[in-house]
Amino acid sequence: MSTTVETSRNGVDTVQLFGTLDAIKGDPSLARFQFRARNRWIDGAHNQTRIRDFYAANQEDASRAQEFVLDAGEPAILLGKDTGPNPAEYLLHALAACLTTSLVYVAAARGVHLTEVESLLEGDMDVQGALGLSDEYRNGFERIRVSFRVEGDAPEEKLREIVARAEQRSAVFDMVTSGVPVTLDVATAG
Amino acid sequence: MSTTVETSRNGVDTVQLFGTLDAIKGDPSLARFQFRARNRWIDGAHNQTRIRDFYAANQEDASRAQEFVLDAGEPAILLGKDTGPNPAEYLLHALAACLTTSLVYVAAARGVHLTEVESLLEGDMDVQGALGLSDEYRNGFERIRVSFRVEGDAPEEKLREIVARAEQRSAVFDMVTSGVPVTLDVATAG
Repeated sequence: MSTTVETSRNGVDTVQLFGTLDAIKGDPSLARFQFRARNRWIDGAHNQTRIRDFYAANQEDASRAQEFVLDAGEPAILLGKDTGPNPAEYLLHALAACLTTSLVYVAAARGVHLTEVESLLEGDMDVQGALGLSDEYRNGFERIRVSFRVEGDAPEEKLREIVARAEQRSAVFDMVTSGVPVTLDVATAG
Repeated sequence: MSTTVETSRNGVDTVQLFGTLDAIKGDPSLARFQFRARNRWIDGAHNQTRIRDFYAANQEDASRAQEFVLDAGEPAILLGKDTGPNPAEYLLHALAACLTTSLVYVAAARGVHLTEVESLLEGDMDVQGALGLSDEYRNGFERIRVSFRVEGDAPEEKLREIVARAEQRSAVFDMVTSGVPVTLDVATAG
């Protein structure tokens, strides 16, 4: 018999994963991160965000070969020209992506091979709030429903535990469900 | 002297804008929207969201000519291969895009021509939370700072009023600052 030590699972380098956890346990200052987004209005509902630099592990991270460019827009019924997903749809994507990544990392750490992870997110909104027509409705989604389909080489109970742990540790799930303090500064020019 | 009635301002069709507001006042059921995102895991920190269909004005909206595809990822230090912005960065983008669009629409409605709108968003996070290493830190950003630069043909006071109104009515600002109830269903297969 031979034993093979897996160094990667679900596309996650588990040696690096446990090494990162150990490094942070040894020096918690490595865990301080700052992420950034730079947005510029183009025209109407079209605006664009550039993302590249961030701070991590006590320095500016310079590992990204290029910046990411994201276009936002609105569909015709919301007075846009479909130059991109709208901001509320981007929030659903952020939530889906974070839950999925958390789930994949947790499974990798716990020795579970995943074969498929899919999700559908739905957010319900009455736009009388955001349009300023009624104070009976909030501006954002009243609720978000997330439906996951997860397949892997573990019993249902273990797969459900992994999803529950991902929900418990997802950065965006935390922010979307509990809220974040936001400060807003404005500089103007006529 | 001649007077010209503007039908578009800041790239926003103001005739359609006020027409939409009047239509919803006449029939508030038109204001019910549902937005959706469909995510699929690819490998490691790489997952992809498809966005197209949504519900609005008492029907499925079929106006979008094509779907939007968004790739998420993580940088090397967070065990990914930079296949896209990470989920927390997407959340910053969603917030920037929504505040900017709200600001542009409010300015259009109030007769203000904007010439430039830029913003920088910064989110601070200690990843000991999301990595499950410490319960002293939350999973998401502790705080988000938004710095806007707004130029237009109005006095500073009016530009600041427009930003304040946008903050008050932005769907994503509402969700990110106050939180949204999220339900999560899971179907599994071994």
